[in-house]
Amino acid sequence: MNQGNVDAPVVVVIGGGFGGVAAVQALANAPVNVVLIDKENHHLFQPLLYQVATSVLPTSNIAFPIRRIFRDQTNAYVFNDEVVSIDCAARRLTFINDRCARFDYLIVAAGANSSYFGNDQWEQFAPGMKTLDDALIIRNRILRAFEDAEAETDPEAMREHLTFVVVGGGATGVELAGAIKELSVDSLSKDYRRFNAKNARVILIEAGDRLLPSMSARSSHEALKALQKMGVEVRLTQAVTQVDEHGVTVNGETINANTVVWSAGVKASSLGASLGAPLDRNGRVLVEPDCSVINQPHVFVIGDMASIKCAKSGKLVPGVAPAATQMGQFVAKIIADEVRAGSTVRKRKQFAYLDKGSMATIGRAKAVAEVAGLKFHGLIAWLAWLFVHLILLVGFNNRILVFMSWGISYISFSKGSRIISGNPPSRVVSPVGSRAGDSPEDRRKAVAELLQRV
Amino acid sequence: MNQGNVDAPVVVVIGGGFGGVAAVQALANAPVNVVLIDKENHHLFQPLLYQVATSVLPTSNIAFPIRRIFRDQTNAYVFNDEVVSIDCAARRLTFINDRCARFDYLIVAAGANSSYFGNDQWEQFAPGMKTLDDALIIRNRILRAFEDAEAETDPEAMREHLTFVVVGGGATGVELAGAIKELSVDSLSKDYRRFNAKNARVILIEAGDRLLPSMSARSSHEALKALQKMGVEVRLTQAVTQVDEHGVTVNGETINANTVVWSAGVKASSLGASLGAPLDRNGRVLVEPDCSVINQPHVFVIGDMASIKCAKSGKLVPGVAPAATQMGQFVAKIIADEVRAGSTVRKRKQFAYLDKGSMATIGRAKAVAEVAGLKFHGLIAWLAWLFVHLILLVGFNNRILVFMSWGISYISFSKGSRIISGNPPSRVVSPVGSRAGDSPEDRRKAVAELLQRV
Repeated sequence: MNQGNVDAPVVVVIGGGFGGVAAVQALANAPVNVVLIDKENHHLFQPLLYQVATSVLPTSNIAFPIRRIFRDQTNAYVFNDEVVSIDCAARRLTFINDRCARFDYLIVAAGANSSYFGNDQWEQFAPGMKTLDDALIIRNRILRAFEDAEAETDPEAMREHLTFVVVGGGATGVELAGAIKELSVDSLSKDYRRFNAKNARVILIEAGDRLLPSMSARSSHEALKALQKMGVEVRLTQAVTQVDEHGVTVNGETINANTVVWSAGVKASSLGASLGAPLDRNGRVLVEPDCSVINQPHVFVIGDMASIKCAKSGKLVPGVAPAATQMGQFVAKIIADEVRAGSTVRKRKQFAYLDKGSMATIGRAKAVAEVAGLKFHGLIAWLAWLFVHLILLVGFNNRILVFMSWGISYISFSKGSRIISGNPPSRVVSPVGSRAGDSPEDRRKAVAELLQRV
Repeated sequence: MNQGNVDAPVVVVIGGGFGGVAAVQALANAPVNVVLIDKENHHLFQPLLYQVATSVLPTSNIAFPIRRIFRDQTNAYVFNDEVVSIDCAARRLTFINDRCARFDYLIVAAGANSSYFGNDQWEQFAPGMKTLDDALIIRNRILRAFEDAEAETDPEAMREHLTFVVVGGGATGVELAGAIKELSVDSLSKDYRRFNAKNARVILIEAGDRLLPSMSARSSHEALKALQKMGVEVRLTQAVTQVDEHGVTVNGETINANTVVWSAGVKASSLGASLGAPLDRNGRVLVEPDCSVINQPHVFVIGDMASIKCAKSGKLVPGVAPAATQMGQFVAKIIADEVRAGSTVRKRKQFAYLDKGSMATIGRAKAVAEVAGLKFHGLIAWLAWLFVHLILLVGFNNRILVFMSWGISYISFSKGSRIISGNPPSRVVSPVGSRAGDSPEDRRKAVAELLQRV
């Protein structure tokens, strides 16, 4: 273990996502102490969260202990704690337990949460999917819905158990809707006696006029076609006006569904509000072209929390992993250069986002991808998606295990992580019979009730 | 999907552990409807729970959806629900929601829970390890303890975070103590800056005069030697008299420890009490030699819930997986034969336990095993342990994934599932500095505090 340099400046990084990890890594050779703080102990590969939610992957395959990443980076210190406010002028952070810490430079990379556009009461009925625990909650709800359907004697209630609504037609919504349909068709179809899981209804609702709005119209069309062919019911230009325990209301129609998942929007971490800088309507901090907070050159905001325009296109830099990574590396270089030069007043470069393309997977051998102006779909796009996601996963072991899980899942049509845990059952219904009396007729009825749909 | 036979008798099996699953499987060709009820949706391979608790395996590798096991067994029906009481005379079950169901035969195989010998208030401080959620709670506590130690400025408090106590020196306790020590030495030793994880103190406390009391004195001795060589502090003939938020009191000495795990005893599921039959002091049902409840020939109790003596040795059949499996097959055959014969009054056989031996793993290439009177230890026993556990796991895919995880873990000395999730932090401490003022001295002190042990 090295002897830390007490006199070197302290760079604090809040958040161990793609942006924060990239920044700490890029500071490896700078004459600074880097302190990374995250309220979780793991870096999360969010692009594969939907595979945890649909029982394809176990949680540990897409999460990696943050401190393990920096095991050999001797100027990096990792703490598992939560920052609740930031005082830019005093260069001070306050933690959830009221203690505080000082920094010389700060990089805020705390990411985003689900946004319900002012209807936060919808969250309990339609959880979003941003953390590992979110994905487990959704996995439990999906699996529990099938269990409840098997135990249900009322046909209408059974249909509600077997109706799954995904709100929001971006990449997450498209991938999740496809994966739920695939789970029901491929993996569950032989496992239930009283209904055919293939007939589970999966509805994807998008308020705009096409899926995957950040991609081309052609990719949107291919995604729509592929989902419809799989049996997903896609509803475009339909806005959700109500979400409650019965389901969702969309264009005045009520869809009764026991499982609703929200992927319609995100808002930046509330930490941005304590920076004293202007925010956009999604809570993102309007930063300078160098990603620093206005009038606070030693404080940077990156990743999903930053509102910054591409110099070339004039469009907002999207809230995706490559953008966060690039910003992290960009601000780390500014800091390293300035610390080495002993000055913070140099003219800084402007952040330039390099768009490496985007992709979304829809199902077995089905995906859409756009790279360098080229558009792919089908098997080629799917293979590209598999390859890119395996490469970007942190940890060699995770790559092997995810590859194995995918291989097994592809070959055997089964999902390995169909485990309900960590949450109490949402509701308990009785499997066999009603409040049976003691007569032989009652007894026969109880059994018949169990078997009538077998 | 087949048309169930409404007139066939209904055999209800409560519990999808080794006993329940074996019983349902053994009834596959019998002219009955078999209904398996479990409050979890998964069969759990309990012998490997300690590997989930110590971050070696993800939960889904040792859990398998129960209904998947019986996908192709057309006379089997699986329901995910909880039975709260049994009326043997009326042949009726009551579920947690007050609805009820009838049975012709009943097999109760609901297993056992941790027992605190009348000190149930200890459970919150010293969780037991019987379910997947138990193992996750323990995993979170162990990983959180190391995180808290890294953030701790008081040396005494840091030591408490790094002290792990396992109470109970049976197979579970031995395996868990060894695995915690191995986790700290192999996997975590380079990951923390402010302490050496190798020095984490692991204490195994056993009230009796030797470890692994169900094995031979020689195996006990080998296990003790191996644990001591690894650096585990083993205390024999010491009884725990108090467990609270500070740690444990043993032989009048208080050991301050933030993580205590309980593996000192089990008690049978409380369902046994509703059978109206005599129980032993661990809550097990004193059953007839054919595993049936006294005066209730159509109700059987098997596995960890049954108190039954080996006909040959006169000793109690132990609460282990092979015994449960054998009982499940035994009672299934009685039921199948009687249903086929149209009679329940035939003279029944007596259950005879075939002891196939026992084994416990202590760490990397270290284990003890006893098979057919032969005793092994070291590498051979460890390889035998690996082989037997892989074979007994349910699901071909799980076997592959566990084998991969073990291989990776063995080669890389790293544990793949070091993820804290599903529980709020037990306590939050501040990582850097104290309530720092604004003076340069304070600021320097805050950094120095962070770095002094690096």
